[in-house]
Amino acid sequence: MPQSPHRLWIDATLFDGLDAAAEPMAVAVKDGRIDWLKPMRALSEADRAGFELVDAEGRLLTPGLVDCHTHLVYGGNRAGEFEARLEGKSYEEIARAGGGILSTVRATRAASEEELFAAARPRLEALMADGVTTVEIKSGYGLDLENELKMLRVARRLGRELKVRVVTTLLGAHALPPEYKDDADGYIELVCQRMIPAAAAEGLADAVDVFCENIAFSVAQCERVYAAARAHGLAIKGHTEQLSNLGGSAAAARAGALSVDHVEYLDEAGVEALAEAGTVATLLPGAFYILRETKVPPIELLRRHGVPMALATDANPGTSPIFSLRLMLNMACTLFRLTPVEALRGVTAQGARALGLQRECGRIVPGMAADLCLWDTDNYAELAYSVGLPRLVHRIVAGEPA
Amino acid sequence: MPQSPHRLWIDATLFDGLDAAAEPMAVAVKDGRIDWLKPMRALSEADRAGFELVDAEGRLLTPGLVDCHTHLVYGGNRAGEFEARLEGKSYEEIARAGGGILSTVRATRAASEEELFAAARPRLEALMADGVTTVEIKSGYGLDLENELKMLRVARRLGRELKVRVVTTLLGAHALPPEYKDDADGYIELVCQRMIPAAAAEGLADAVDVFCENIAFSVAQCERVYAAARAHGLAIKGHTEQLSNLGGSAAAARAGALSVDHVEYLDEAGVEALAEAGTVATLLPGAFYILRETKVPPIELLRRHGVPMALATDANPGTSPIFSLRLMLNMACTLFRLTPVEALRGVTAQGARALGLQRECGRIVPGMAADLCLWDTDNYAELAYSVGLPRLVHRIVAGEPA
Ligand SMILES: [Zn+2]
Ligand SMILES: [Zn+2]
Repeated sequence: MPQSPHRLWIDATLFDGLDAAAEPMAVAVKDGRIDWLKPMRALSEADRAGFELVDAEGRLLTPGLVDCHTHLVYGGNRAGEFEARLEGKSYEEIARAGGGILSTVRATRAASEEELFAAARPRLEALMADGVTTVEIKSGYGLDLENELKMLRVARRLGRELKVRVVTTLLGAHALPPEYKDDADGYIELVCQRMIPAAAAEGLADAVDVFCENIAFSVAQCERVYAAARAHGLAIKGHTEQLSNLGGSAAAARAGALSVDHVEYLDEAGVEALAEAGTVATLLPGAFYILRETKVPPIELLRRHGVPMALATDANPGTSPIFSLRLMLNMACTLFRLTPVEALRGVTAQGARALGLQRECGRIVPGMAADLCLWDTDNYAELAYSVGLPRLVHRIVAGEPA
Repeated sequence: MPQSPHRLWIDATLFDGLDAAAEPMAVAVKDGRIDWLKPMRALSEADRAGFELVDAEGRLLTPGLVDCHTHLVYGGNRAGEFEARLEGKSYEEIARAGGGILSTVRATRAASEEELFAAARPRLEALMADGVTTVEIKSGYGLDLENELKMLRVARRLGRELKVRVVTTLLGAHALPPEYKDDADGYIELVCQRMIPAAAAEGLADAVDVFCENIAFSVAQCERVYAAARAHGLAIKGHTEQLSNLGGSAAAARAGALSVDHVEYLDEAGVEALAEAGTVATLLPGAFYILRETKVPPIELLRRHGVPMALATDANPGTSPIFSLRLMLNMACTLFRLTPVEALRGVTAQGARALGLQRECGRIVPGMAADLCLWDTDNYAELAYSVGLPRLVHRIVAGEPA
């Protein structure tokens, strides 16, 4: 990669990933990373020397957005099923017609890597147009060794070919494949003994995730997956307490999970477990909205116990066909009553923490990657208040407008 | 305007504004209007003669989208108030601090035409990027003669300078201005005797609208406004039954309204009045969502009585700071259980009808303006199912990609 010039962003209104700066700031970028920050009033002529100056003209500069939970790689889509349901077909009729998650599994298995890449690319580009510079992508529609690895290879390729940082997560334990219909333990065995070792050996996964729920896998089964992940040096995440309270979040926290995601049904004991372990609670208001869920995550408890809250799209073909992280800012405020600051932290500093990248991105502080967004507003709250505005003026990856 | 070449769009998957075509179609455009349509299998060499061919490659072609209810022209925004509320400030505290609709009135009155134009432009551009080719823009934050006309002049200028059809609506009876605090009838007198005649004389308004509600104007007051509008040859619209059931929709229908908008609290008598008058019910799920309303409009009754349903953003700084009509497609399906076909009709054929433009735009049939959108999908349901996708490949105004 050609070296970018040293750049000094001047007269920026700053939201640094945790808080808003009190006065106009200058941000120095060298070799793709944040070098230093200074208030404009303290900026000397000497400070400017050697930099190409970019005048932000008072506009809002934030970290590039982090979407820490997506399922962007899959075959087909479920628009037909969406329509059938609204036309009055029952879940049973749709299942009999081949709908539901297993239809996505079939389409994903049938697709080549090339086809999956071509299908995922516009989804990722939509997120990037929205300001995303780091994205997590899960597998989980292959549900066998070959197809789970295929999905992860596509995710890795997206990160190589597009100007975005991609973090990959093996979600073999997403649903029970038809081949293991009555043998969930046998499938977990496959995940632990074959998928995790292979994904780790090929460097295809940064983390391992599970769906801990009555309709998916038990806490005990998830704990086996966590143990295998740890044994192979992979980070841990969990889809937990989305539809019921099984104690899956606490189990994930005890296993050292980076994050537990959804958590609508999390109780105070679970919140305490997260606080103790330093595990992030990732909120997914898109799925909440699409499923017309009414149980709101325990925001007040999470606040009281100081649990970091991340925010993500959960972009997926079934429960959140939503390719806009900024819409999640508004939904988190409107539906979950987060404050705009909490919502913005969720897609910057806390989103990065949910991926174990808190020393790499998600904040505008010296040493971090210069992944930045410049917005056509001077008020960070407008990012959560408006949908479709303000305009993204520059999306900057490693110091370069991308 | 330079004459555009005759163009033949071939191999298009068509949604014509009311229904999906059963097979791939060709659409001929001459002099900015739809000339004819034919199934691809019936297309002869002679049919193609004299046309510049554009291959849609099976992609979805729809009418350009119609956003039939917006308040795009205003000063300031209410992001600060949005944040204050989420930080726990009460409505009273916010009102004491100068928030609420009157803060928008103050900012709008204080702004020059130039400033209002510059503020509204990116809002309209966001809608256009989403596929909107026709948009209605209301006044209603001036609340005196001079400032209501100023807003309408800005709306007209947006239509002249941007590639979008703008329909303007005088909404003098939006709220009671401070000058008329205890004299609603006196203010209605001003609307009827001064604003409507002036807006009509200067050709600044196509229609007149009211806010019929306990917190705004009574049915009797709205009827005075309708009479004045009719006397000056202007069309009629109403914000009715949003927060309670006053019978405002039926009164508007009796007065010959093009549409009644919001209608969450509409009852069967009101629905029957709409059906009888041919008045459109315009659904505004953005405001429903932002206000966390739980009363859904009577969709089943509207269906049963054959009332056309339009769908719009209600883009405004207080209750719907949402600049995406496509998001309304998803919200109408998710929150109101419209089918994708109903939602799409709502932003095409029925949106046009709500503006009295049913012979001009909103459908792909011979004689209509060639305002079109080409989408990167072959399934119209995907427009309602996905948020942020599919990509808009071409936005076409009067036959020209714009
Ligand atoms: Zn998920
Ligand atoms: Zn309105």
